[in-house]
Amino acid sequence: MTAYLDNNATTRVAPEVLAAMLPFFTENFGNASSTHAFGAQVAPALKGARQAVQALIGAEFDHEVIFTSGGTESNATAILSALETQAPRDEIIASAVEHPAVLGFCQHLEKTGRAKIHVIPVSEAGDLDRAAYEAALSERTAIVSIMWANNETGKLFPVSELSARANSVGALFHSDAVQAAGKIALDVKQTAVDMLSLSGHKLHGPKGVGALYVKKGAKFSALLRGGKQERGRRAGTENAPGIVGLGVAAKLALEADHARVAALRDRLQRGLTEAIPAVAINGAGARLPNTLNIAFACADSEALLHKLDKVGVAASSGSACSSGAIEPSHVLRAMRVPALYLQGALRFSLSRETVDAEIDAVLQHLPAIVASVREKSPLWAELCKKTA
Amino acid sequence: MTAYLDNNATTRVAPEVLAAMLPFFTENFGNASSTHAFGAQVAPALKGARQAVQALIGAEFDHEVIFTSGGTESNATAILSALETQAPRDEIIASAVEHPAVLGFCQHLEKTGRAKIHVIPVSEAGDLDRAAYEAALSERTAIVSIMWANNETGKLFPVSELSARANSVGALFHSDAVQAAGKIALDVKQTAVDMLSLSGHKLHGPKGVGALYVKKGAKFSALLRGGKQERGRRAGTENAPGIVGLGVAAKLALEADHARVAALRDRLQRGLTEAIPAVAINGAGARLPNTLNIAFACADSEALLHKLDKVGVAASSGSACSSGAIEPSHVLRAMRVPALYLQGALRFSLSRETVDAEIDAVLQHLPAIVASVREKSPLWAELCKKTA
Repeated sequence: MTAYLDNNATTRVAPEVLAAMLPFFTENFGNASSTHAFGAQVAPALKGARQAVQALIGAEFDHEVIFTSGGTESNATAILSALETQAPRDEIIASAVEHPAVLGFCQHLEKTGRAKIHVIPVSEAGDLDRAAYEAALSERTAIVSIMWANNETGKLFPVSELSARANSVGALFHSDAVQAAGKIALDVKQTAVDMLSLSGHKLHGPKGVGALYVKKGAKFSALLRGGKQERGRRAGTENAPGIVGLGVAAKLALEADHARVAALRDRLQRGLTEAIPAVAINGAGARLPNTLNIAFACADSEALLHKLDKVGVAASSGSACSSGAIEPSHVLRAMRVPALYLQGALRFSLSRETVDAEIDAVLQHLPAIVASVREKSPLWAELCKKTA
Repeated sequence: MTAYLDNNATTRVAPEVLAAMLPFFTENFGNASSTHAFGAQVAPALKGARQAVQALIGAEFDHEVIFTSGGTESNATAILSALETQAPRDEIIASAVEHPAVLGFCQHLEKTGRAKIHVIPVSEAGDLDRAAYEAALSERTAIVSIMWANNETGKLFPVSELSARANSVGALFHSDAVQAAGKIALDVKQTAVDMLSLSGHKLHGPKGVGALYVKKGAKFSALLRGGKQERGRRAGTENAPGIVGLGVAAKLALEADHARVAALRDRLQRGLTEAIPAVAINGAGARLPNTLNIAFACADSEALLHKLDKVGVAASSGSACSSGAIEPSHVLRAMRVPALYLQGALRFSLSRETVDAEIDAVLQHLPAIVASVREKSPLWAELCKKTA
């Protein structure tokens, strides 16, 4: 049995998604901007996809959805747009647990003198420090960028309240919803969120395509310019197969049974905490139904993942984007996860394709794997074993 | 018979390309940055694609190739990178016939105070005004961006000489090779080109993927930041199916018979000029083998295209990216195409899939179509008919 429990890194493209994409590679290959018959076949398909993404996030108008190449581009576009349209405001507020596509990007902008960034701490539970947030908000704030859900822990942020506060000081509010979209119900029109990013490949759509929601009336300046695609808000020949695929993925996500996924995740969490001593859940509380971040004291996550991989279980120690990095996750450090647990954190991320047998596989193998890794740890004998 | 002669707008994805992409949507869907088995399947495929693009453009090292979402992103990345790494240099030199993804983008940078742009005129034949180019080059020049071949006329630019001159004043040289790549032999290592853009869907690869060549040692600063993909030079989960498809497309382009395409194009040009009076070729001389820009005096291109479309022939009046625009092409205006011809220009762009019957279809229908459109033109009776 192979168990793929790394769906926050990427998901398998759903068969229905691929089937819908295929004609746009071959028979309907035209450029959507062309006026002849080959181009005319494409535009209605793009419109359908736009409406599907609109429905997924509860946008009021389909033209509030701009297709991009993915989450990273959507995030960069939102932030750079705000710095341009909100000048002379030049401050950015972001949480300490943002994805590197927001946090690292903003830090580069600060380093190159284009913005000042306020990084808002989180509590041990992963909740935003609301006092620090209030203190940072000012008439200098161009944009607040706070994720809808964290990619490593699944932790949810109260974007409705946070966005209302941002708007009250004249700041734009952007939310990186790459992990939230398709996993929980979103309704942007019930919030003051001005911009929102999502990505196809996190919800069984294709890689290389995403979307940026821009609320009607919100100030916006395009990052990629040239052709008049996407009403002049994102130049470049439309990735028609990718966009069509994202549309179908959005539809499927709306119909998905998130409660079934949550039940599987809860069974995994219960099973592991019962079978393994000295375990901590990172980011418990309100979180995505598919994500479990669990830390094993005095165990090394790389060793755990290697042994899991050998028995066919794919998980991760955090973000796939920073794999190869030896440093522990910036998210868990921001949450002040104790040193003994910090190196032993694993992320299991499920999807609507996850089946019971995959959970069984983890429960079958991981207790022995953790024990074998801990046996080689001098810390385990000295410190953790006693308290376990 | 349907004739698709709009391959400079986009091309059909080659069957071999699609076949190579398919496994990366489903069984090999892993994130290339993941360390487990699902991720490990992907990295070798990306390496193979990188080497194929390297071969296509004659790059010395495979790591000089950065995968992007397409030509527009590659162009923007190159220009913004140069402005950042070359500061305090803040001037851009571009030709008057660049694609809007370069020209429009630079104009926006100028409008927002981030750069000064020198637009270099071209002659009636479409050749760059070398004296104006020399006059614009200075120690203020951050980057020169001149296309390898024009998208509307196919006209080739002497990038080898132009790039050497740019480098001699310490400026970076970027070439938009979106239309050249895959249609003529390119060898960047024989030039002083620092950066080069190409796009998958112009050479029978997929939409939504492209590449930016950055010469080893050239100063570079990433536009999209966050994850460490592409050696930190382009963040965002790798579009594995798209990249694999681009790799196969590059291989196929290297094997393509460009002479056969040129012969078909020449037959089309000869046939039309023989059968139709008052015709002008725009950008004759050294040009891409697949492109014919031909203008019919006192005829309206939109009317011609509409009638061609009705008989199953797809062509264009210029760039698909500006379709819907009523203004005549900025390329043809820069070439000072006479007013009587300006509104009657058509672009026929072939590909290696083009067959004799498609050329026959144009030769069969277009003379009568031009005549019927001209019949409704008062100008034709007054001015053109006499001189024809």
